[in-house]
Amino acid sequence: MQRFRGMKIDEMLKAIDNIEKRIGFNLSDVQKILLTTDGSVTRILEVLTKKPVVIETKVKTIIKADEDLARALKIKSGEDVNFRVVHLKNPDDRALIFAKSWTPMKGLNNSIKKDLTSADIPIGKILIKHKIETRREIMSIDTINADDEMVKAFDVKLGDLMLSRYYNIIHEAKILIRINEAFPISSFL
Amino acid sequence: MQRFRGMKIDEMLKAIDNIEKRIGFNLSDVQKILLTTDGSVTRILEVLTKKPVVIETKVKTIIKADEDLARALKIKSGEDVNFRVVHLKNPDDRALIFAKSWTPMKGLNNSIKKDLTSADIPIGKILIKHKIETRREIMSIDTINADDEMVKAFDVKLGDLMLSRYYNIIHEAKILIRINEAFPISSFL
Repeated sequence: MQRFRGMKIDEMLKAIDNIEKRIGFNLSDVQKILLTTDGSVTRILEVLTKKPVVIETKVKTIIKADEDLARALKIKSGEDVNFRVVHLKNPDDRALIFAKSWTPMKGLNNSIKKDLTSADIPIGKILIKHKIETRREIMSIDTINADDEMVKAFDVKLGDLMLSRYYNIIHEAKILIRINEAFPISSFL
Repeated sequence: MQRFRGMKIDEMLKAIDNIEKRIGFNLSDVQKILLTTDGSVTRILEVLTKKPVVIETKVKTIIKADEDLARALKIKSGEDVNFRVVHLKNPDDRALIFAKSWTPMKGLNNSIKKDLTSADIPIGKILIKHKIETRREIMSIDTINADDEMVKAFDVKLGDLMLSRYYNIIHEAKILIRINEAFPISSFL
């Protein structure tokens, strides 16, 4: 079921508890932080790996929002959305995090639009560069099974368990970008 | 030396590297995340402990900014600043983090002012409650030695090594609150 407000902390703890009961072991502290933080994920990855984190763009395209996407982004059906699939990674290494993002194009400031839609810069760094004030709402936290794209990104097999979350970065009371991140349950242990 | 812009990621990594060289061992992943995150620290503590985090206020007073403080807060000398010393902790437990904060009073929206200066609500929760869009600039990351107040807060002895950082939460291009957090180097291992 699609949510339309951010999760409260007790809902996030409940989601983690449900995952831990289902898989039969506890998530690591870093996994739990990555699933719940409202701060920059790129920064966390850079601090953990002590290396720069870059993005490798796999898909970048403009799509027309269907009804579900429009509802999730709080825009009108048919409006343009920049859809991107990227790997967050250290240079010359495999993916750390697999991410999809949806950016409504209407009303987007031009300099932000350029960085958000064309350059290979992680969103956290774009926000810092432009000194953009935001808040982040975590919309869901769950497990998923690795698909073909994830098998290519990580050292996992088809169907392997992954941790995943959806969140919105909100700026001037509008969704600037909706992000889905996923990483193998065997990462960040 | 006082800094007037946020640290870049390579400066944060360098600060952590310097600490690790000085103390002779590596900081834990959670310690590094707590020192560098631009997200809610309260949320991280709640996710790690799986319990609510509350604040226990030790000092709450209005002070007049001296020249140094005025410069750090980008206000005029003599302006009112709400100064607070708090423990972030699980209910009925010892402190997890010792925090000092400075909030310039001028121009502060009344409902935010009430929560920021009177109620025992962690700043991260106040921002969520009021849907305040912000960005956070980390100003310094260093070690300090435990003083008398910290000995009372934690299971540490006078002079024991603590990890500490200063950061500013910025809203509408002004410093909403300047925060100094500290925790024992023996915590979050």
